[in-house]
Amino acid sequence: MLAGDRLALARLITHVENRTSAVPEIMRAVHARAQDAYVVGITGPPGAGKSTVVDRLTATLRAEGITVAIAAVDPSSPFSGGAVLGDRIRMQAHALDPGVFIRSMATRGSVGGLARATGEVIKLFAAFGFSWILVETVGVGQTELDIMQMADTTVVVFVPESGDAIQAMKAGLMEAADVFVVNKADRPGAPGLMAELKFAAHLHVTSPGAAKDVEWEIPVLAAEAQNDTGMAELLAEIRRHRAVLEASGALASRRRAKRRAELEMLLLDELRVRLKHRLQAGDLARTFDDVATGALDPYSATEAILARDDLLTE
Amino acid sequence: MLAGDRLALARLITHVENRTSAVPEIMRAVHARAQDAYVVGITGPPGAGKSTVVDRLTATLRAEGITVAIAAVDPSSPFSGGAVLGDRIRMQAHALDPGVFIRSMATRGSVGGLARATGEVIKLFAAFGFSWILVETVGVGQTELDIMQMADTTVVVFVPESGDAIQAMKAGLMEAADVFVVNKADRPGAPGLMAELKFAAHLHVTSPGAAKDVEWEIPVLAAEAQNDTGMAELLAEIRRHRAVLEASGALASRRRAKRRAELEMLLLDELRVRLKHRLQAGDLARTFDDVATGALDPYSATEAILARDDLLTE
Repeated sequence: MLAGDRLALARLITHVENRTSAVPEIMRAVHARAQDAYVVGITGPPGAGKSTVVDRLTATLRAEGITVAIAAVDPSSPFSGGAVLGDRIRMQAHALDPGVFIRSMATRGSVGGLARATGEVIKLFAAFGFSWILVETVGVGQTELDIMQMADTTVVVFVPESGDAIQAMKAGLMEAADVFVVNKADRPGAPGLMAELKFAAHLHVTSPGAAKDVEWEIPVLAAEAQNDTGMAELLAEIRRHRAVLEASGALASRRRAKRRAELEMLLLDELRVRLKHRLQAGDLARTFDDVATGALDPYSATEAILARDDLLTE
Repeated sequence: MLAGDRLALARLITHVENRTSAVPEIMRAVHARAQDAYVVGITGPPGAGKSTVVDRLTATLRAEGITVAIAAVDPSSPFSGGAVLGDRIRMQAHALDPGVFIRSMATRGSVGGLARATGEVIKLFAAFGFSWILVETVGVGQTELDIMQMADTTVVVFVPESGDAIQAMKAGLMEAADVFVVNKADRPGAPGLMAELKFAAHLHVTSPGAAKDVEWEIPVLAAEAQNDTGMAELLAEIRRHRAVLEASGALASRRRAKRRAELEMLLLDELRVRLKHRLQAGDLARTFDDVATGALDPYSATEAILARDDLLTE
């Protein structure tokens, strides 16, 4: 893969998705070859036109000769994979361009591992040598927020009809978002939605409670991605945000924080596996059963188990 | 609280919400006095009329002399708490009824602890002596799914307009739902939505892959909660589901599984805290910093840390 073999890249991503035993070895090798890539997250409710925005941004970046990798992540696909498939068909404009790589990622039953897999895929893309990485997700649930935290700049795309969607997406949104886009801005509700978002952005930037490492008020852009309207402005805002992050030192400090968070996540994942094993098959199984029958309350059991010295040795 | 003091119950809930150091002691005491309560989860997109459904179910149960506690959980409220407030005002019909207790719960900045707090509040309600506990949440993100897993029967409420919402809610929905309700069933899109949901329910029950401990095809009910239409049928379906769970032994085995899951969650929560402390201030801080600067890759760091014998002793 490090020699530029796209098929090898695709195979490594499959390893990551399936969490094979080769993943730690792969990720160690990739770490040594890490290259600097700029990661942009694009999220929003279903039907907001995120894929079209990704498509247009990609075309603009390619026109400048910049290579682009895209991860389209759908935490909600076990029920129906239709939307993602449709999106990917639309992206075929770039299918023959060696400067573009597109990968769809979906949960297979559980949403738990998807954020971790996405983080690993971002690293594979960066090691391969892509300059920009676009990560597209649907909605803002916990998984999407975890994924957005991997982006350097996060764009949230709305449509005038998405009133309900804004309500549904509000958890953590102001903390995660760097740029708001109102797509399909020719529709009637657009001016009202833009005013609402601008007010929310202004409230957020002036709220004394929010922890901010950088001076940045979320800009609100009108766009019609289908007609390429507003896309140059969007790219300009992303670059302005990048410049602010770089100049303030926030980009470097955020990336340090992300590496720390990654180590914590890896350790906890491994501890979870070991703990489960000890509880189900190991010497803690008796305590586990006592809790299951209700004979022992889980708080006393937790205390007793944590008092052991050998808790997590294998 | 165990003597029936509602103010004491409210205070204990505040302890749980604020995660004070008294919580383990409280929960241990409550465990000894655990009583059998039936837990019903009610979820659905914003605007589906969940609060009205909860209100009508409560009125019907109260007419039978059954006591009801309600936890209205909004994982998305940091951005705007308006909807929950409105819902609670509507619930004032029960404000003076000593057989009803209503508590709104919302995230304060982070969504992480909300599922855990909800589980603890359910136990407090049960120990207080409420017979039925209704848990209302918005949407189906990971937090909502975690919360729904605490319910014995989960009702998902839709409205004909919620086409997008169904897409957004699809992750894990079929696994979590026991009853579907199409509310505001007088609106034009209702028959189509009901057909769609019936088809999904039938597909799910006949799919060979799904793990099922009980024979149950999700029923799809039409309702107009505002006019009390369909509410008796909903309660009948919830009771039919309860009877099926009890007769098959699934209720008991699911509750054992829930207690096991609770122990795992408590242990992992505590391990997370200890690990964070060791990484930030303890002897692992050096490794943590090496990962932050990129000098060491997180996979090698994980391996080195997990090899230590004293990993999680304090």
